[in-house]
Amino acid sequence: MRYDGRKNEELRPVKITTGYIKYPEGSVLIECGNTKVICNATVEDRVPPFLKDTGRGWITAEYNMLPRATQTRTPRDIQKLKLNGRSAEIQRLIGRALRSVADLDNLGERTITIDCDVIQADGGTRCASITGGFCALALALKGLMDQGVYKKIPLRSHVAAVSVGIVGGEAMSDLCYVEDSGGEVDFNFIMDGSGNIIELQGTGEERPFSKKELDSMYELAKNSIDQLIALQKDAIGDIVR
Amino acid sequence: MRYDGRKNEELRPVKITTGYIKYPEGSVLIECGNTKVICNATVEDRVPPFLKDTGRGWITAEYNMLPRATQTRTPRDIQKLKLNGRSAEIQRLIGRALRSVADLDNLGERTITIDCDVIQADGGTRCASITGGFCALALALKGLMDQGVYKKIPLRSHVAAVSVGIVGGEAMSDLCYVEDSGGEVDFNFIMDGSGNIIELQGTGEERPFSKKELDSMYELAKNSIDQLIALQKDAIGDIVR
Amino acid sequence: MRYDGRKNEELRPVKITTGYIKYPEGSVLIECGNTKVICNATVEDRVPPFLKDTGRGWITAEYNMLPRATQTRTPRDIQKLKLNGRSAEIQRLIGRALRSVADLDNLGERTITIDCDVIQADGGTRCASITGGFCALALALKGLMDQGVYKKIPLRSHVAAVSVGIVGGEAMSDLCYVEDSGGEVDFNFIMDGSGNIIELQGTGEERPFSKKELDSMYELAKNSIDQLIALQKDAIGDIVR
Amino acid sequence: MRYDGRKNEELRPVKITTGYIKYPEGSVLIECGNTKVICNATVEDRVPPFLKDTGRGWITAEYNMLPRATQTRTPRDIQKLKLNGRSAEIQRLIGRALRSVADLDNLGERTITIDCDVIQADGGTRCASITGGFCALALALKGLMDQGVYKKIPLRSHVAAVSVGIVGGEAMSDLCYVEDSGGEVDFNFIMDGSGNIIELQGTGEERPFSKKELDSMYELAKNSIDQLIALQKDAIGDIVR
Amino acid sequence: MRYDGRKNEELRPVKITTGYIKYPEGSVLIECGNTKVICNATVEDRVPPFLKDTGRGWITAEYNMLPRATQTRTPRDIQKLKLNGRSAEIQRLIGRALRSVADLDNLGERTITIDCDVIQADGGTRCASITGGFCALALALKGLMDQGVYKKIPLRSHVAAVSVGIVGGEAMSDLCYVEDSGGEVDFNFIMDGSGNIIELQGTGEERPFSKKELDSMYELAKNSIDQLIALQKDAIGDIVR
Amino acid sequence: MRYDGRKNEELRPVKITTGYIKYPEGSVLIECGNTKVICNATVEDRVPPFLKDTGRGWITAEYNMLPRATQTRTPRDIQKLKLNGRSAEIQRLIGRALRSVADLDNLGERTITIDCDVIQADGGTRCASITGGFCALALALKGLMDQGVYKKIPLRSHVAAVSVGIVGGEAMSDLCYVEDSGGEVDFNFIMDGSGNIIELQGTGEERPFSKKELDSMYELAKNSIDQLIALQKDAIGDIVR
Repeated sequence: MRYDGRKNEELRPVKITTGYIKYPEGSVLIECGNTKVICNATVEDRVPPFLKDTGRGWITAEYNMLPRATQTRTPRDIQKLKLNGRSAEIQRLIGRALRSVADLDNLGERTITIDCDVIQADGGTRCASITGGFCALALALKGLMDQGVYKKIPLRSHVAAVSVGIVGGEAMSDLCYVEDSGGEVDFNFIMDGSGNIIELQGTGEERPFSKKELDSMYELAKNSIDQLIALQKDAIGDIVR
Repeated sequence: MRYDGRKNEELRPVKITTGYIKYPEGSVLIECGNTKVICNATVEDRVPPFLKDTGRGWITAEYNMLPRATQTRTPRDIQKLKLNGRSAEIQRLIGRALRSVADLDNLGERTITIDCDVIQADGGTRCASITGGFCALALALKGLMDQGVYKKIPLRSHVAAVSVGIVGGEAMSDLCYVEDSGGEVDFNFIMDGSGNIIELQGTGEERPFSKKELDSMYELAKNSIDQLIALQKDAIGDIVR
Repeated sequence: MRYDGRKNEELRPVKITTGYIKYPEGSVLIECGNTKVICNATVEDRVPPFLKDTGRGWITAEYNMLPRATQTRTPRDIQKLKLNGRSAEIQRLIGRALRSVADLDNLGERTITIDCDVIQADGGTRCASITGGFCALALALKGLMDQGVYKKIPLRSHVAAVSVGIVGGEAMSDLCYVEDSGGEVDFNFIMDGSGNIIELQGTGEERPFSKKELDSMYELAKNSIDQLIALQKDAIGDIVR
Repeated sequence: MRYDGRKNEELRPVKITTGYIKYPEGSVLIECGNTKVICNATVEDRVPPFLKDTGRGWITAEYNMLPRATQTRTPRDIQKLKLNGRSAEIQRLIGRALRSVADLDNLGERTITIDCDVIQADGGTRCASITGGFCALALALKGLMDQGVYKKIPLRSHVAAVSVGIVGGEAMSDLCYVEDSGGEVDFNFIMDGSGNIIELQGTGEERPFSKKELDSMYELAKNSIDQLIALQKDAIGDIVR
Repeated sequence: MRYDGRKNEELRPVKITTGYIKYPEGSVLIECGNTKVICNATVEDRVPPFLKDTGRGWITAEYNMLPRATQTRTPRDIQKLKLNGRSAEIQRLIGRALRSVADLDNLGERTITIDCDVIQADGGTRCASITGGFCALALALKGLMDQGVYKKIPLRSHVAAVSVGIVGGEAMSDLCYVEDSGGEVDFNFIMDGSGNIIELQGTGEERPFSKKELDSMYELAKNSIDQLIALQKDAIGDIVR
Repeated sequence: MRYDGRKNEELRPVKITTGYIKYPEGSVLIECGNTKVICNATVEDRVPPFLKDTGRGWITAEYNMLPRATQTRTPRDIQKLKLNGRSAEIQRLIGRALRSVADLDNLGERTITIDCDVIQADGGTRCASITGGFCALALALKGLMDQGVYKKIPLRSHVAAVSVGIVGGEAMSDLCYVEDSGGEVDFNFIMDGSGNIIELQGTGEERPFSKKELDSMYELAKNSIDQLIALQKDAIGDIVR
């Protein structure tokens, strides 16, 4: 049995609160167990230089943790004048994941920025940011559709993410911090609703792992992502077709 | 009548949720109308160089707004590699206010950092940070007292803050964003529970103001601070004597 | 009697040398006792983005101390790649004070930058910067008027500043460094020539202070500001009407 | 047939020149087709703070491209005062890969830094950095062993990396720049000599990909890594047992 | 006899490899003994603001050392967020030297950037950068001439540089690192092919030096520069007339 | 005749005011015509890491210009988060020049920092900084000698600097800004009192120059330096023997 009593394939309780902050064009608070991330989507009528006058749009993300999202306090990036390497890596990942399901050609010349601010971290913050960030993005795009900007929401499918790992020799889904830091292998699966993979990152933290182990982690992930996408639909409605 | 129907001397609804984030030694979410600030207190066993080996402690604060705490998105400081001038000013103010009621001589060689992260801003964020930050500080010190570190909590009194201003020719308490940005004079009063002033900042945004106007703003502030300190006591108990 | 023999209401000797540096459009050296600040005004035909094409102008200030303006050497900001928090706060204050008496609508689309460089610091440097900075600003605007740019100088009144504090239980005006660092309460009053307040900042460094103490400091400040404005007029002439 | 005439499973010509730079403790130039990376290993008798007095060592990597390693010039990071996000991500990956095969417990309290400087880039620079960086690391450790510091080289196995992707619907190994930028799916496999995976990163650049496609890319990668490890042994000898 | 057996007036073996990196418009590897510098020229169709719409062009240089170009590892500039003072000085020198022989009026509105990346340093890296950088520049300009952009190459003459010093009381040419660091006087001469001086920098590292010593160093330098220019012509052809 | 009526070999009026700022251990204002530089020496009981526990001391310099020392305003370095390349180069030069005449072995484990802040610039600011900086240094060392720290002042000789150039075909000493910017050749000579050279920097701004021109500039410089050293002795006394 797992640290918190879950079965190996069981997700922590997920709660997606929409309209969490009142100003952003899309806003959700996503809670996966004790991990809590505010995901805010901002729509701006400008694009990065390489897209100027192409008629295409852009989606980007920023990821940050409050200093006391964690057990010990992490100094703010501005203190060292350096964006934390881990944050830089994660926000690039979130941006890629969200762009992969968006129809950038039909977005119009606008940029949508998804701010993922972790207020409490208990493992899986990058996955929660993707799952929640998708909802914030979809809500912002729905708002534009409701204003008549789009006839059809420019999203091809849902996207969600889950961490899967091997802990004490067993494959487990949705690792909490204790499991993650004690695990042997650590994966992040980002998938759409058809069991196809959008991005995959896996590290043998403690030891190399076999192809067979990869296969079993894939099965767990596929099942978890299906559940997460169902939860997204409960929260924001069935707006992506 | 005011923008949101309040009387001139009336505070917005205030809600102080303690234990909001699970890891910090003290944590509250303070909501003053639509202004929402997470205040987290961190205790660390180190002091700044100038206090090394003096037996004295230190209290400091950091203030930040999420990019979409506001109507339009503000880029993060790390983007420009510069701490926002306004944030720098505010966090120095919060630190001074909290130190003014603390007994640093009896704090022990430790630093308490109060992180004030504004997740939604509708005016009065620096005042909410001080009022909420005091609660986070008091809870962290109570935790140390409960562990037997102190016999008596090293705080001399409560401290709270309120913005007061002159809008449309009338003095009003606890300005929301619309009132603040349209007002003629804008004050922040930081006071203790006896009507004494700890810090005072006032600007004639649109015009100079008279001594008489200052006097009437003081009266409003004094009354509001009394209410805020009562609300602090409701939230954290009567732990400062 | 005070540290340097002055009476409580007495200013230190003030000397304002106009045309101190030859290149700026307005330049003064202001000496308040041992505090010496070079104030240079630069006129540039550009405005910040938010004023573009509005026909309005802007006034801003920068404040800096030479490394050995003080008893011990302070490393330059560029060493740490961070603008000193105190400098950031002071230069925002100077800018607000000068803008408050300027008629920005009739300034034309230009920016006037007031550089306040403290070459020797003995308390009250921010107040000296405002009092001297006003002279540099007025001289630069007079230069533009003499060139026919303005019919009337775009200034509504003089502005000057003084530090007032409570030291050893007594209210005193124009604190020198020794008084300031040993004082209980420390105020900066920024006022126009009619006894109206433009900005007010006060801190109970050692203890909270009462409304009555605030009232007595106001009286001292009002009197000192009247003298400072008279000295400004002696130095730059009676050009603001 | 591929862009440069190779078969889908065929590596570009690989050349590993040892002792390329004379000062580092280990130095190789690795050339994979037109991709050229200088990998230098530096041994220093200090460890990061979290390893102080633990007796354990550390391995870290830095990755950089010369401005004209690419078709168009990329400004140096110092120009923007920011470490490029892509470089930050890659150097974290290289560090993890090399640490995964090292016996840090028996390294002694020293840090080995692997500098990977890309002088010419034609796709697969991060993989070349790992494959070449391993050689530089092994040579530096062999040097220490030759000096009598170790009885046995503190490496558990070889590590090498290859990019594999789906281009025009076909899985291909060791993508050059043209293939990489036009491909649908892009993977980096980091493996040891037994077909076990150390790290895996895959992105559906143009579309999601299926589990079956992942399986076929794994097969290609496994085969390529075997060849790369054989080439490593040719270059540095059979020093890891 | 010198450290490496050379005569006082003797250069180390010089090797200039053209077309070293395949992407830049001009590229050479210059080797002066153990000093090795990659010099890449990039042509871009933009000029600095002060040259906009003047029809004139610009030449600039950047200089950097790989961390292990030297005996001990030097952290990268980005680590400290500061361009190394020595590098800043050297790249300004290289830029001035190359501009001094170029006909900027006839360059067209384009900027040519010469990147000098030292991969191995054994003294004289700034001189090698100038001598090699000239070749990269000339090759890039020849490329433009071959495309029909110029009728005549916009260069007035060759430029080369050599370090000359006084070591153990004797004037010597082309100091290697050991000689340089143990020397009494250290000069860099930058000259054209007619014995005229373009720039001169000399420092009495250990003691002041006399005019007579300066004269004897000039003679050595003149002779060495003649040889270096002959070697440049061997490498890139006789394209400057 | 020259721009300001001087003869070719004639210095501008030089004024050295000692004790200009009251806090530094040594302080002078040096005025060379319209060029004005405040030179402050600070003594601190610490040395850079490479001198720790060697018993030796260090001398370093910092150079900066006030934003309006020049005809147009130059933004402060902190604005761009970069130390100006020109300043970096100049302060390294000042430091080398002053160290060259100091007896660092007998300085004791202390660092003397010479801050050169240009308040008005009309050409020759680096030379004025060296000539004035030497006086500030000597005064600080004399102060230490008077306190009994030294028996003999740890300086081997005076050092002064002058700019010499070729303008309109004629060699001239002590160029003012107009001459400097219109000149063909620009030299800085740093010399001791015996006509020996400490450092030499010369650039053919507009054209290469001949050895004969270098010789004639040396003669002018030697003569000017003699005068400057006499002026130093008038100002600070004959304390270096």
